[in-house]
Amino acid sequence: MNTDRLYQHGTLAMLVPGLFAGTQKIEELLQHGNTGIGTLTALDGELVIIDSKVYQVNAQGAVREVGSEEEVPFANVHYQADKSVGKLQGLDLSGFQKTVLERLQTANLFAAVRVEGRFTQMHTRAVLPQQPPYPTLTETASGQKEFNAENIKGTLIGYYSPDLYAGAVSPGFHLHFLDADHHMGGHILGFELDSGELFLQKFSDFQLHLPTTNDAFLKQKFDTATLVADIRKAEN
Amino acid sequence: MNTDRLYQHGTLAMLVPGLFAGTQKIEELLQHGNTGIGTLTALDGELVIIDSKVYQVNAQGAVREVGSEEEVPFANVHYQADKSVGKLQGLDLSGFQKTVLERLQTANLFAAVRVEGRFTQMHTRAVLPQQPPYPTLTETASGQKEFNAENIKGTLIGYYSPDLYAGAVSPGFHLHFLDADHHMGGHILGFELDSGELFLQKFSDFQLHLPTTNDAFLKQKFDTATLVADIRKAEN
Repeated sequence: MNTDRLYQHGTLAMLVPGLFAGTQKIEELLQHGNTGIGTLTALDGELVIIDSKVYQVNAQGAVREVGSEEEVPFANVHYQADKSVGKLQGLDLSGFQKTVLERLQTANLFAAVRVEGRFTQMHTRAVLPQQPPYPTLTETASGQKEFNAENIKGTLIGYYSPDLYAGAVSPGFHLHFLDADHHMGGHILGFELDSGELFLQKFSDFQLHLPTTNDAFLKQKFDTATLVADIRKAEN
Repeated sequence: MNTDRLYQHGTLAMLVPGLFAGTQKIEELLQHGNTGIGTLTALDGELVIIDSKVYQVNAQGAVREVGSEEEVPFANVHYQADKSVGKLQGLDLSGFQKTVLERLQTANLFAAVRVEGRFTQMHTRAVLPQQPPYPTLTETASGQKEFNAENIKGTLIGYYSPDLYAGAVSPGFHLHFLDADHHMGGHILGFELDSGELFLQKFSDFQLHLPTTNDAFLKQKFDTATLVADIRKAEN
């Protein structure tokens, strides 16, 4: 159980031109970590992985537990060994990101970020399941559903990734939310944190696992130059 | 012994602003593979790793075996399990790269490349050891020494890396050479292959290991936008 490693199945660049086919089963993904985030085949909703349980927030805003045979085109997991770095109070998303970077004391390592807290506002989104032939990632964003909750308790889970690796990862912060009752969540677009505890885990290793037998991926011509701009647009 | 994984210590982006301090011992590097390429502290020469033996070609053109306590700022290793994909004849570097990509049938996976062959021409370089405060990577290139050999037998070892990961890796081909008698080698700038056998090994996983305790690395501000251009300039 390697707690120094962030594992990723798929590369974010794959999603940009619309390679949304699932290429790794949940049961295989969970062999590389017990905590994380991701999405299902067809970009169907937002995953939050806690204690080896995988929760999907779908575009109706409903939360369900995902089965071991379902597949992801893209997910990050790690073995949780995070440490509390103290209490947070009265922060919005941008103040939170600044605080995390101050606590990490570097922008150049991958890190897991977790908050157990109460949020006065939580604003999330979930992508609708797409139909093949799949559209591009930026096109899916226009059809996403957004959710707002007030005075909600729950878990923020996600990662900080250095900008340098933007072809592989969602650069900067990639944060998902699941409320304590498993009724609300998704990809975080904004929040107001009332108070919570911040946990961080820095990684020495980033392991990128690519779908070696997915023909569409193998044949795709990626335009590296425009990719990073497209990724930033779709993820924020 | 994972033969599906390419392991890398350090990120190529570190070298661009001049972070040349060794951050991993050879003995630790060799715990992640028995074959590869790299450089030593201060960018001192070019490494070729074969059968867990590490050879350095220095800027005088001399070859020596490197000790287990010496350190690398940047290196790639893997466990060799490559397969012969046939004989090659009468190719220059650019024809060779085209042939490898045709045989790989994808530009989107990391792969190890090896040729055992006879070269009518081999043109290499080795970087001079730098002195702190270190210059930038592009500045070191202006002081590199170049070597030419004719009718030389030896081993070409290196990697193909997808363009997408240019912040982490040397994008495209990164090839080193060591002649059969261990008298000549270096970072390949060009060649004319008479005949040889090509071996390839595709990887499902790319594992990036970062120096978590190197303060200069942790504090460095990377300019992602200009980095890829600088990397291409310095490596070719």
